[in-house]
Amino acid sequence: MPVLLPHRATDAFLDLALAGDRSEAVRLTTDLVEEGFSLPTILTEVIGAAQCEVGRRWQRAELTAADEHLVTGISHAALAALSSNGHRRASHGTAVVACAEGDWHALPSQMFAESLRATGLGVLHLGASVPAADVGALLERRRPDGLVVTCNLPLSYLGVARLADAAHRYGVPVLAGGRALTPERALTLGVDAWAADVTRAAEILRAWRRSRPDVPAPPVDLEPAAVELTRRAAGLAERASDALLGVFPAMASYDDRQRDHTREDLAAIVRFLGAARLVDDDEVFTSFTSWLEEVLTSRGVPVEALAAGMTVLAPLVREVDESSAGLLEAAVARLG
Amino acid sequence: MPVLLPHRATDAFLDLALAGDRSEAVRLTTDLVEEGFSLPTILTEVIGAAQCEVGRRWQRAELTAADEHLVTGISHAALAALSSNGHRRASHGTAVVACAEGDWHALPSQMFAESLRATGLGVLHLGASVPAADVGALLERRRPDGLVVTCNLPLSYLGVARLADAAHRYGVPVLAGGRALTPERALTLGVDAWAADVTRAAEILRAWRRSRPDVPAPPVDLEPAAVELTRRAAGLAERASDALLGVFPAMASYDDRQRDHTREDLAAIVRFLGAARLVDDDEVFTSFTSWLEEVLTSRGVPVEALAAGMTVLAPLVREVDESSAGLLEAAVARLG
Repeated sequence: MPVLLPHRATDAFLDLALAGDRSEAVRLTTDLVEEGFSLPTILTEVIGAAQCEVGRRWQRAELTAADEHLVTGISHAALAALSSNGHRRASHGTAVVACAEGDWHALPSQMFAESLRATGLGVLHLGASVPAADVGALLERRRPDGLVVTCNLPLSYLGVARLADAAHRYGVPVLAGGRALTPERALTLGVDAWAADVTRAAEILRAWRRSRPDVPAPPVDLEPAAVELTRRAAGLAERASDALLGVFPAMASYDDRQRDHTREDLAAIVRFLGAARLVDDDEVFTSFTSWLEEVLTSRGVPVEALAAGMTVLAPLVREVDESSAGLLEAAVARLG
Repeated sequence: MPVLLPHRATDAFLDLALAGDRSEAVRLTTDLVEEGFSLPTILTEVIGAAQCEVGRRWQRAELTAADEHLVTGISHAALAALSSNGHRRASHGTAVVACAEGDWHALPSQMFAESLRATGLGVLHLGASVPAADVGALLERRRPDGLVVTCNLPLSYLGVARLADAAHRYGVPVLAGGRALTPERALTLGVDAWAADVTRAAEILRAWRRSRPDVPAPPVDLEPAAVELTRRAAGLAERASDALLGVFPAMASYDDRQRDHTREDLAAIVRFLGAARLVDDDEVFTSFTSWLEEVLTSRGVPVEALAAGMTVLAPLVREVDESSAGLLEAAVARLG
């Protein structure tokens, strides 16, 4: 079996997908199976890598969201073609795989689910954005070995904690993974185990099948200010947007769409502050602001606009949480 | 070729999907292909019908959102298995298929896209929720025969109109379909043609290929009050929620989640009012309130709570739009 992927497979897949050539893109991935590559390798190093590259190019305004969606659709088609090969193997235990409510990233969750299935586990995949109480009701009926939550964006942290609470209510342990989590962050959100990849996840689920771990009965203790920031993000953004008109005169010439975008960006800043506070990790916020800075400057929005927005937000955020206001002011200072 | 589906296929598919038995559910649909049923028939009468039935059972609180997601994931898998057979046919023209921004119903959109592809059209499927400006940029590069928009929820009307404007900016005509549209509603939103099914859609796209129609250059004229209601829905719901505490004492004992749900329901009411006004069709709002009434009463929320919510909303909505406030008051009278 080959040990290295042809290093151009990712680029070739991405080029075909961006051209909208679904059948050739899918065939490229199924050919890799014929050549002996494993499902997790193809998913991670071809499809997943192509998706990450699309995200980077979008960040730099080299691609639009329409291009992203075109590629994601073709990635889904490839995933479906790849997984039809593997889903008749015997089941050794069962897992339910879900995203938190509000998390619409179905593709990484489904990639994880298919990889788990390929290890011989029975998998129920619930996909994107499921309300926690409804997941709880399903867990109560199904009694799986574990609930697996994928989390690729910090905005879902609160939803992850709610899923963990819902699972624990029925004694079901929770395993989480994904780009937005670290072991520490997962723990803070009440998750029972974190896995870096599907091999480790399958091991943990098998161990849980042999001996179901005790899980905490009461809901995880979350920082109230973080929850409050998340809840009030839209309202704070609305007020900040009004205030911004006074201190950033260029905004007076914005059209409705630009104003909507500004308000959405301000709300995202508050939500990321809430996310950072929820897992007690400033890096969540600082990496978001670096990302947002590149997104905005690539689209011709001056860094002064971002700094002005954060400056007007700071006193409003301070009403809810002193420490988040400090994070914001530090970010403004970094922007210069 | 058989002309009637075995009438139990839908029920059998739904039972397998609800049990999480993906491989058997997928096999049931691919077996129907072997038996000579067409792709659109299987998609509409088995998968689509099963999805509608799931929606009805959710409405009556017989299923949860987690069950819905489980079935939808299996429907996606069946769709992928079915469409892999048909996507190498020669292309006669091209269409871009998309949902409006904020519309996350990827499955009906993808079902429509696959059925179009099966008629021999080249299809670029952008899936759920794409920003209009980004779709415009893609249309400018690709110059398809038409943009196809599926719309299954009135909340996407504004997004449909924005997609139509974006396509027209590049001279691309727009065809729309889906459960939430009628020919009149589509026209009001600036769409150039409405199709009841994929056969008609393919005919229209072929006609457009032979002779590209003129499309209006300026953006479609939308009712400003309707746009304003949509934009201010969250803020009005927040104020109504505070006011509701005064007139509906039971709310004082609500926990945070119940308050969030109440605020979301109030915002949905305002958004559906905006949607009804946007297409100048009261039925959009009256059918929503009937649906919401069943959803709430099935979950133990008394009809008095819904009436109280609408009553406190009415004067706030009147600040934006007199005629929507009238619609609300008529709905309260019907509930009373």
